[in-house]
Amino acid sequence: MSTAPRAVVVVTGDEVLRGRVADQNGSYLSAWCDANGIAVVMVTIVGDEREVIARTVREHLAAGVDLVVTTGGLGVTHDDLTMAAVSEATGIALAEHDPALRLVRAASATAPHHRSIPAHIREATERKQAMLPRGAVMLAPIGTAPGCIVPIGEQRVVVLPGPPYELERMWADATTAPVLAELIARAGGPARRVLRLHAVVESQLVAALDQMPKGTRDGARLGICAKAGEVELTLADIAEGGAQRLGDAIERAFPGATFTRTGEAIEQVVGAMLADRGQRVAVAESCTGGLLGSRLTSVAGASAWFVGGVIVYNNALKRDVLGVSDEILTTDGAVSLASAKAMACGARALTDADWGVSITGIAGPGGGTPEKPVGTVCIGCAGPDTVAVEAHHFRGDRALIRERASVYAMHLLRRALGDAAV
Amino acid sequence: MSTAPRAVVVVTGDEVLRGRVADQNGSYLSAWCDANGIAVVMVTIVGDEREVIARTVREHLAAGVDLVVTTGGLGVTHDDLTMAAVSEATGIALAEHDPALRLVRAASATAPHHRSIPAHIREATERKQAMLPRGAVMLAPIGTAPGCIVPIGEQRVVVLPGPPYELERMWADATTAPVLAELIARAGGPARRVLRLHAVVESQLVAALDQMPKGTRDGARLGICAKAGEVELTLADIAEGGAQRLGDAIERAFPGATFTRTGEAIEQVVGAMLADRGQRVAVAESCTGGLLGSRLTSVAGASAWFVGGVIVYNNALKRDVLGVSDEILTTDGAVSLASAKAMACGARALTDADWGVSITGIAGPGGGTPEKPVGTVCIGCAGPDTVAVEAHHFRGDRALIRERASVYAMHLLRRALGDAAV
Repeated sequence: MSTAPRAVVVVTGDEVLRGRVADQNGSYLSAWCDANGIAVVMVTIVGDEREVIARTVREHLAAGVDLVVTTGGLGVTHDDLTMAAVSEATGIALAEHDPALRLVRAASATAPHHRSIPAHIREATERKQAMLPRGAVMLAPIGTAPGCIVPIGEQRVVVLPGPPYELERMWADATTAPVLAELIARAGGPARRVLRLHAVVESQLVAALDQMPKGTRDGARLGICAKAGEVELTLADIAEGGAQRLGDAIERAFPGATFTRTGEAIEQVVGAMLADRGQRVAVAESCTGGLLGSRLTSVAGASAWFVGGVIVYNNALKRDVLGVSDEILTTDGAVSLASAKAMACGARALTDADWGVSITGIAGPGGGTPEKPVGTVCIGCAGPDTVAVEAHHFRGDRALIRERASVYAMHLLRRALGDAAV
Repeated sequence: MSTAPRAVVVVTGDEVLRGRVADQNGSYLSAWCDANGIAVVMVTIVGDEREVIARTVREHLAAGVDLVVTTGGLGVTHDDLTMAAVSEATGIALAEHDPALRLVRAASATAPHHRSIPAHIREATERKQAMLPRGAVMLAPIGTAPGCIVPIGEQRVVVLPGPPYELERMWADATTAPVLAELIARAGGPARRVLRLHAVVESQLVAALDQMPKGTRDGARLGICAKAGEVELTLADIAEGGAQRLGDAIERAFPGATFTRTGEAIEQVVGAMLADRGQRVAVAESCTGGLLGSRLTSVAGASAWFVGGVIVYNNALKRDVLGVSDEILTTDGAVSLASAKAMACGARALTDADWGVSITGIAGPGGGTPEKPVGTVCIGCAGPDTVAVEAHHFRGDRALIRERASVYAMHLLRRALGDAAV
């Protein structure tokens, strides 16, 4: 991998630098590069200042990276300065690009609210967006702004827009452009595998790996990353057989914990298991308020195995819609194993699904008691033959507790599906 | 603001650099600094390489920034190298810090799976985590790793852990440490306002601002940022009266579009409106699968105004649980204004809530037809006296269409609440 092309991503935008918008583009491009054998050495987020953008691009080019990708700053406002900054950094003057101007005008004409903008303002912004460094390869607008690829000897600067949807599509176009073909061919694709485990913490995995015979690791570079309720192990520079042996050794150390050796998210894993079995799932959510359903339905084609469910944030709904008994609600409480069980069964019965998954808990910051502090979450999974329930105490703030609850509920379903006869 | 302290955030971690985990810490710290008058000039994401981390920190210190904050790389694995890198960058040797070691041991003893890790490995990792640069101020562990503040003349390097939950709490501790007090006092707090508008696009707002009499803008620096279905306008360096006048001028240009002049998210705005009225809302979601409920319940205390709802991903549930008629489902279709109306009314009736909000649409990538292409979404809002419905065609991919649908549904509710007699 020593000849892998090296890349830098320069994310521009005051809104990102000031933390009002989380960066998506840097991580999207990094992930793409990583999956395709390009080594991203740095992601830099800078504000909407022409000199800073120009200096950053110039320094990275001077340091000899093969590829600099910029995102953002191609819009119509006075703080959209990236094209000018790239011109300054590369010493290549901007010029009006005729095909770009035609495409900008066509995109502008079909945009919502086109008529509400005075003609002279529209004309000026259209011309601004059609200025590209001379000799650059234009990338057609996805929204209204074109991007471009600037060749400088063997180096390439790719200028992309800020909205993630536009960026992803324009990057897809860029990667098929002949001017990037040699660089991408040289990258030669991935040599990396991603294993994901549930119910194992980072330090346990570290200890297990340290205790394995050295041959098992086989020279592979390992990366370990903890996520909410999961831990991800990345193997780089490892052959097929070596990855298989290491995966098997981890399975022996933590039976059943590895839920993918090919990097899928848990919602994709349970979706595929349900689809394989021709079965369907429904949810009953209290403290997560729809987060579990939202994650499951983020998978394209989820309608094949997800029917729906209920969000029962208050007790009357738990009783009236799901049939949780007054006795359970008053004796055990809404956050209890008995309630989680009744909710899972109730979701299954209401929707006629094969599986019902429930979450009821205290996400905080209010609502905790000495017996049931914030972070107490009960989850349930009812299937054709069995019902499983679990109680957890999750650390973290409201968002993290809700996220962990959703992740653990999906893993409870995964194990139940694995245990059930196919 | 010319004397505002200047800061740089250095995010470390292969998993972030490679795009497998989106950075949360850089944007959290940037937002905190921005809200507290510290100017973040750059956020840099680097991998788990000691030399790269050390060089980055050293260069920023040499460039004269007042504050460098690092995140990540304080864990137990061999690629956790940030403390060593900061030592290298500052030329201050690491030494075992006794109070840190006691706290690390105490945290380690209560951690899950403590007993499954062999004692000699545990001991080595505990000692590793207790090594701090000499003279640094220790920040007590939130998880297992301590952080620290390293004073170098007037400059400060703050070393924080990577898990966002740990980082946020440790940063809160850091900001109260005497060694940072002078720097934070010098920052002097914010001079910034955030307005957020719905159903206005960026270019319309730019045009409207350009046409306003120059006096209206009053020397303020403006930042405009488009989000899914919303646009955010940030005013910096503006006095109270000036902000008021500019906000009023925008209200005249786009009546009813501004939903906050103080930066709240739409879910907070509708939550507060409902709480003011003593009313409650329920949801009925199809293509968003729970995303609307999840966003509403992300607000702490949502149980005061959110009762729950139903996720009706398939048609049988729309009919059986919400009472959408077979006639509507076969004649108008599941994605129709009639269906959205029936779903909103059904959610209200089922839950006895004051308001019912519905979403039904085609999020793609499959399921589109020539008459109802991917992105077609109908939303409804049923209240005590009225029912409103809207049809939209959203651009974007599955995730963006779902996000836009949720945002537009919350704004439909906001307008209905505004129109209804209080």
